[in-house]
Amino acid sequence: MNKSGAQPAPIARRVTMQDVATRAGVSRALVSMAIRGMEGVSAESKALILDAAAELGYRHNAVAAQLAARHSKSLGFFLLDIYNEVFADIFTGLRTRAEARDTRVVLSVGQPSPEAERRHVDGLLTAQVGTVVFAGTMLPDEALEFIARTVPVVTVTRLVPGIDSVACDDYLGGDLATKHLLEAGHRSVAYFGPLAGGLYPDRRNGYRNAMEQAGLQPRVIDAELNQLDAARAATELLQSEHRPTAIFAHNDIMAIGVMEAAAELGLDIPKDLSVIGYDDTRVSRLHRVGLTSVNQQASRLGEIAGDLALRRMNEQGGVAQHTLLTPHLVARSTVGTVS
Amino acid sequence: MNKSGAQPAPIARRVTMQDVATRAGVSRALVSMAIRGMEGVSAESKALILDAAAELGYRHNAVAAQLAARHSKSLGFFLLDIYNEVFADIFTGLRTRAEARDTRVVLSVGQPSPEAERRHVDGLLTAQVGTVVFAGTMLPDEALEFIARTVPVVTVTRLVPGIDSVACDDYLGGDLATKHLLEAGHRSVAYFGPLAGGLYPDRRNGYRNAMEQAGLQPRVIDAELNQLDAARAATELLQSEHRPTAIFAHNDIMAIGVMEAAAELGLDIPKDLSVIGYDDTRVSRLHRVGLTSVNQQASRLGEIAGDLALRRMNEQGGVAQHTLLTPHLVARSTVGTVS
Repeated sequence: MNKSGAQPAPIARRVTMQDVATRAGVSRALVSMAIRGMEGVSAESKALILDAAAELGYRHNAVAAQLAARHSKSLGFFLLDIYNEVFADIFTGLRTRAEARDTRVVLSVGQPSPEAERRHVDGLLTAQVGTVVFAGTMLPDEALEFIARTVPVVTVTRLVPGIDSVACDDYLGGDLATKHLLEAGHRSVAYFGPLAGGLYPDRRNGYRNAMEQAGLQPRVIDAELNQLDAARAATELLQSEHRPTAIFAHNDIMAIGVMEAAAELGLDIPKDLSVIGYDDTRVSRLHRVGLTSVNQQASRLGEIAGDLALRRMNEQGGVAQHTLLTPHLVARSTVGTVS
Repeated sequence: MNKSGAQPAPIARRVTMQDVATRAGVSRALVSMAIRGMEGVSAESKALILDAAAELGYRHNAVAAQLAARHSKSLGFFLLDIYNEVFADIFTGLRTRAEARDTRVVLSVGQPSPEAERRHVDGLLTAQVGTVVFAGTMLPDEALEFIARTVPVVTVTRLVPGIDSVACDDYLGGDLATKHLLEAGHRSVAYFGPLAGGLYPDRRNGYRNAMEQAGLQPRVIDAELNQLDAARAATELLQSEHRPTAIFAHNDIMAIGVMEAAAELGLDIPKDLSVIGYDDTRVSRLHRVGLTSVNQQASRLGEIAGDLALRRMNEQGGVAQHTLLTPHLVARSTVGTVS
């Protein structure tokens, strides 16, 4: 992730009717007629214009333009995983801001592959949203920049150059969690998280650096961002010869998977194994769960993203804005001391 | 809820351009020209036509029509509560079917008021979806019928006359949960659920009937469909003179709220209090939670709703289809015996 000190890049511009005209080599008036379905445009010109519009990702809705005074535009919200409550928290913050400005929010839910995400985003774009806020996107920076040519884009939980973004400092979060375990006397601490994609490496890097600073060997376990895969990886690790005394998981869902695996193996938490999650979601707060977790101010992230998106719907251009919040650790009952 | 034996009602018809013309008292051709923004329509006629279109809820997208061959339509999915995983389970089933037919899903998330829901649904409609699937809608039947005049509508978890619907038998679910507690020896069993709206009374009625059949007094506690309000109501009830030995909650979220309140009061589950939830969501299955719950086949509900919606996107008219699935109880560790 780029820190807020990164060079501000100019914001990607929305594609206009003039851009389509230039690409198709025709007049702006002819583009307007073709797009509106008016007569007097040859079939050949029409095909040329529609192709240019499709290539540039140009979108236009004749009725929407006419009814602009009656209907406010919608805000599109993409979230990676409907089972991860951190996205519900972000959404809640975002919607508070959108509602205050009478703007509706339509959502699209991701799947763990960039190809699937491209399709879901396309669903939002054909839904005529005036802006798209991405929470937990797996798309590379260039793909987000491309989309930003069609519609204003905001990213949450990841800072992207040239695009309005808000995130919480994942490197610091990884550092906080790891040091909390080290201070409790743990020396064998494993990190669970996905290695693929490499778009969210900062929690892992914070962990790695804290371990190395303490003269300890980092131990990164590759697992997907869901409960089942974390449980699978934990079952394997916890039965291995060199079982760690503590596990720091990339998010609460994975930490829950680790706890389930430990329970299956008859291991007591925190006596036999300490666990720290990330996101401080509702499940971590339950009396029976009591998961120590890192809070990344999710609803605040949503509020800031909402403000950025609403501003971009009304005023385009200018310099991309980046905000980085500070996480804090919430200690509960899944971390024990080692002497 | 109407049982599947209800009289099939004719499905509400989509509003056409001809309907708008008739209402406005002009020709269909003039409506087409006005809607497409073409010249040759007087300002007066245009206002008349746009007003008629707005009154009837007519929607049209000139570009969408032109690009119909390139873009498949989207399916709109309304869900009541982003924090209730039963909707995530329904969504997962629905998306499986939509993806198999190359149809994207855009979502809208509710709030516990019909007014708010109307706004969210409007967000989906302006998103140009080809159909709307409602999961847990708080809108009355008439409002749903009205929307069905604009776009094909499917309801999930509630059967609505004249509208394609799929639900699981809530009356039977309430019966199953209550009898499970009665068979464990409980005589003082309270039900937690919302009384407002009255749109989802069947779990409560199943509970009430089972209690009365056993010669016991039903005890219905009015609480909202969220963890905090259930915890508030439980804190009050569990400190009252006549504390029940068991609580059956309308959904898992509320059951979790009851469990949190019991923990705060130092009550042991199931020794001091038995609890049953509804939906069999992920949290109920955790080792540390082990909540006994009623499974309503949520992902299957979503699959069936998806099939119904996809069919309606391609073929309109005909008789509304109603499907009622059968629930089952999943016994875990939150129910104790009373001798």
